[in-house]
Amino acid sequence: MLPFARVSILGLGLIGSSIARGVKAYMPGARVTGYDADPATRLEADALGFLDDVADSPGAAVTDADLVMLCVPVGAMAQAAASMADDLPADAVVSDVGGCKVSVAAALRAALPQATIVPGHPVAGTEHSGPAAGFPGLFKGRWCILTPAGDTDPAAVMRVSAFWERLGAEVEVMDAAHHDRVLAVTSHVPHLIAYSIVGTASDLEEVTRSEVIKFSAGGFRDFTRIAASDPVMWRDVFLNNREAVLEILQRLTEDVTMLQRAIRWGDGDKLFDLFTRTRAIRRSIVEQGQDDAAPDFGRRHE
Amino acid sequence: MLPFARVSILGLGLIGSSIARGVKAYMPGARVTGYDADPATRLEADALGFLDDVADSPGAAVTDADLVMLCVPVGAMAQAAASMADDLPADAVVSDVGGCKVSVAAALRAALPQATIVPGHPVAGTEHSGPAAGFPGLFKGRWCILTPAGDTDPAAVMRVSAFWERLGAEVEVMDAAHHDRVLAVTSHVPHLIAYSIVGTASDLEEVTRSEVIKFSAGGFRDFTRIAASDPVMWRDVFLNNREAVLEILQRLTEDVTMLQRAIRWGDGDKLFDLFTRTRAIRRSIVEQGQDDAAPDFGRRHE
Repeated sequence: MLPFARVSILGLGLIGSSIARGVKAYMPGARVTGYDADPATRLEADALGFLDDVADSPGAAVTDADLVMLCVPVGAMAQAAASMADDLPADAVVSDVGGCKVSVAAALRAALPQATIVPGHPVAGTEHSGPAAGFPGLFKGRWCILTPAGDTDPAAVMRVSAFWERLGAEVEVMDAAHHDRVLAVTSHVPHLIAYSIVGTASDLEEVTRSEVIKFSAGGFRDFTRIAASDPVMWRDVFLNNREAVLEILQRLTEDVTMLQRAIRWGDGDKLFDLFTRTRAIRRSIVEQGQDDAAPDFGRRHE
Repeated sequence: MLPFARVSILGLGLIGSSIARGVKAYMPGARVTGYDADPATRLEADALGFLDDVADSPGAAVTDADLVMLCVPVGAMAQAAASMADDLPADAVVSDVGGCKVSVAAALRAALPQATIVPGHPVAGTEHSGPAAGFPGLFKGRWCILTPAGDTDPAAVMRVSAFWERLGAEVEVMDAAHHDRVLAVTSHVPHLIAYSIVGTASDLEEVTRSEVIKFSAGGFRDFTRIAASDPVMWRDVFLNNREAVLEILQRLTEDVTMLQRAIRWGDGDKLFDLFTRTRAIRRSIVEQGQDDAAPDFGRRHE
């Protein structure tokens, strides 16, 4: 049995279009309608053909939906929710894919006081953006975290959970505030640092931009890949997960300062200990299928 | 014509064994002898069969060499050079692959006052270590930086340059101090930050290690790959490129502090501007063949 029969997707970028493609691929009986605030994106989505119908307005997109999935940057969630509030069927479930959950849950609840809301966050993506970048298998083997409020209808949580499992994801339910702390560590602060170091490099006077690019295989290019992600999406994540990001950043700064001191004073043991400890975490990530063991630094090779 | 006919490699890890394999593959007439201070590594290298001969001592390894390539961690260069000084043929060229060049050049010059020395650094590698991790194509399309002193015989520089080109690398000659600044930005500081953030994550009380691993696909796993590199090699790099690393780290800290402040005060424009600027650098890296455009965050997908 299909968890939802009429899925409506608001926001047709990488994530929204991947969900739409995944529904067509893995829940073939379900109908998928989509809308994007950008007319050019609507046209592109229509031409790519991964939707049954491209609606002309948010209201028209949701009018007969049993699942409405909001796939816009977290700073645009409130407005996206408000824009379709009048047309939302009473029994529809509303979910989203935002990368931080406390602020989004509050925004959705304020815009849709009567709706059944199951906020979610698929921990998946690529460094590319837009409807053409989506693909049906994006969520396979990745985790999707749901953060429903305590009084949410358990049946609705079950259905959203089943929906993500059909897309290939594993589902975990957790408290929104805990989600925001975990993701600040595993995603938000890493992105901020990657953006920052690419910025620092491009500001150096004596090191030319061409040198930075030429010799990027020593680690830098991996940071640039992270720092190539969608700017609007990331700006919104940082502004909306402020407290958790600032706290993790503070801890990281302390730890970097400790390493800085170890380098200044030639304390090799302290460096060696940390560098050994971090290897074990890498091993666990590979063992649990969250990354390949293949030596990716070499990229294409014989 | 072969740039060198009898290559001796001291240190048979990822880089040393890749050079040996590359010589066999792309300079088939040349003879390759190797030595490693670790008897187990010598046995493993012998079994893997990528050398013509595994020597029992550094002296025996270099006795008839026309190129001696030191492939040990930068902190072990002085000792490796001293260990074969008495047996080094007068007309042999000595080179190395160390990731920082000012300190290594000084160490080699002190240990081998009469030798022709052409320090080098292939900007290539993987997150794996040891003789079994090597492969002949590791240097293809990557840069190798040579940092000879001003009074070095140009013919020797030419030969070492030709050697790297045979291995598939592009060669750039630069001043050792400039090299150390460039690499501090494009490699050393990114590694230090990656190590640090993995450490910060594993120290959090409320976020379990299993959560960090599960949800690593949001960016963190890419840092763990960088932080899985060889601990001894990296400890030595930081201790031996201290000034440049500390200076870049200081600049990065300032830039992160600026972003921290932008987040605290809700200055979205500042974040958006940086996140847009960094995308352009990524594009150049892909255009110049230093990384793939394929959406690697998705890893294996349909």
